[in-house]
Amino acid sequence: MLDKLIALNADCAAALDDDRLEDWPGYFTEDAFYRVTTAQNHARGLPAGLIYADSRQMLRDRVLSLRKANVYEAQRYRHLLSVPRLRGEAGGRMQVETGFAVLRIVRGGATDIFASGRYLDEVVAGPDGQLLLQRRDVVCDSSRIDTLLAIPL
Amino acid sequence: MLDKLIALNADCAAALDDDRLEDWPGYFTEDAFYRVTTAQNHARGLPAGLIYADSRQMLRDRVLSLRKANVYEAQRYRHLLSVPRLRGEAGGRMQVETGFAVLRIVRGGATDIFASGRYLDEVVAGPDGQLLLQRRDVVCDSSRIDTLLAIPL
Amino acid sequence: MLDKLIALNADCAAALDDDRLEDWPGYFTEDAFYRVTTAQNHARGLPAGLIYADSRQMLRDRVLSLRKANVYEAQRYRHLLSVPRLRGEAGGRMQVETGFAVLRIVRGGATDIFASGRYLDEVVAGPDGQLLLQRRDVVCDSSRIDTLLAIPL
Repeated sequence: MLDKLIALNADCAAALDDDRLEDWPGYFTEDAFYRVTTAQNHARGLPAGLIYADSRQMLRDRVLSLRKANVYEAQRYRHLLSVPRLRGEAGGRMQVETGFAVLRIVRGGATDIFASGRYLDEVVAGPDGQLLLQRRDVVCDSSRIDTLLAIPL
Repeated sequence: MLDKLIALNADCAAALDDDRLEDWPGYFTEDAFYRVTTAQNHARGLPAGLIYADSRQMLRDRVLSLRKANVYEAQRYRHLLSVPRLRGEAGGRMQVETGFAVLRIVRGGATDIFASGRYLDEVVAGPDGQLLLQRRDVVCDSSRIDTLLAIPL
Repeated sequence: MLDKLIALNADCAAALDDDRLEDWPGYFTEDAFYRVTTAQNHARGLPAGLIYADSRQMLRDRVLSLRKANVYEAQRYRHLLSVPRLRGEAGGRMQVETGFAVLRIVRGGATDIFASGRYLDEVVAGPDGQLLLQRRDVVCDSSRIDTLLAIPL
């Protein structure tokens, strides 16, 4: 199972890094919840997220907006992922934690560390057996994350 | 066995990254040796380390000091670990090498690369079968590591 | 098979990071192709690479040059590798993609992100069953890579 979780994370990150943004929502369930927040807000139980979506369709809409804004021309990501840690399993849902860092490569410019943090995921089996994200809370270590028009993490 | 070594490293790093410092000594044996040194000193066989402990209790004491100094409020780590490489095995001890990088997130500030290097570990099986660190030499690539009051690597 | 691909990548990177440059060509076949290029050039199908070799001997020659130039004294690398993604397999050749980042540690100086990108590899089984690189295209995310006298990526 660990191998399949590793592959899910790797495929999901590669879709973002390799400019196949349209493939990215496909790793989520139709009614998936996706949020980017900070460690500080997460620890305080604050609901507000920097990015928020409660369906796969909202993720697709975000990708469309990014394409229109032509963001990808100007920047790329490179995800560095830790090994997922299975924290629990009940009712067909796995609770999974994965550390991450994302480098941002700005065209004609420098490479910097854009974000780091943890994915707090709920993973379920999809209709044809593949794993899908039912929920992904992206908890960023730093409070200084500029997600305006950013590629998802 | 590789899976268990990966999990040991991941759990150990997550305790540090997730502000569960008190859990960290639990991944070492009672008479464990832990040292942070530089590649230059390591290559010359110099014994002096930037951090040094020869028992689990000393690791616990260090964590206590860090709590009193309230270091964690001001900074967080994010470990990025390579896959461990098993270098040898004899008398129930595994020799394991793992590359690492540690990002440091300063509150209200930037994220930088705090350290990179190799863990040179001796790993043994604990009383209930779980793997434990008997020895960890943290060999940092750079000679410019400020470990004063720093969270362990 | 994934375990063996992970180990090939880890061993190959460790040879570079641990100053065992002479071991590095040993992970390639005799008639291997190795190239470092940029994502921009790769997307346009431009052949020109920042580093180019079409045999293991050329890789050995490059290592010799690096030793003469004493580059290693002045800098070290630390590779951070993603999990390899098997993209296809035919005629005994595996097509494998692996994300990477390379930190550079300059002696007496800072640590920065030297490069990030993808390895696009063709991997074959060598005479005694071990995996070897038949081809490695190192596709760097950024166009600003200074590879003059640099350690290979």
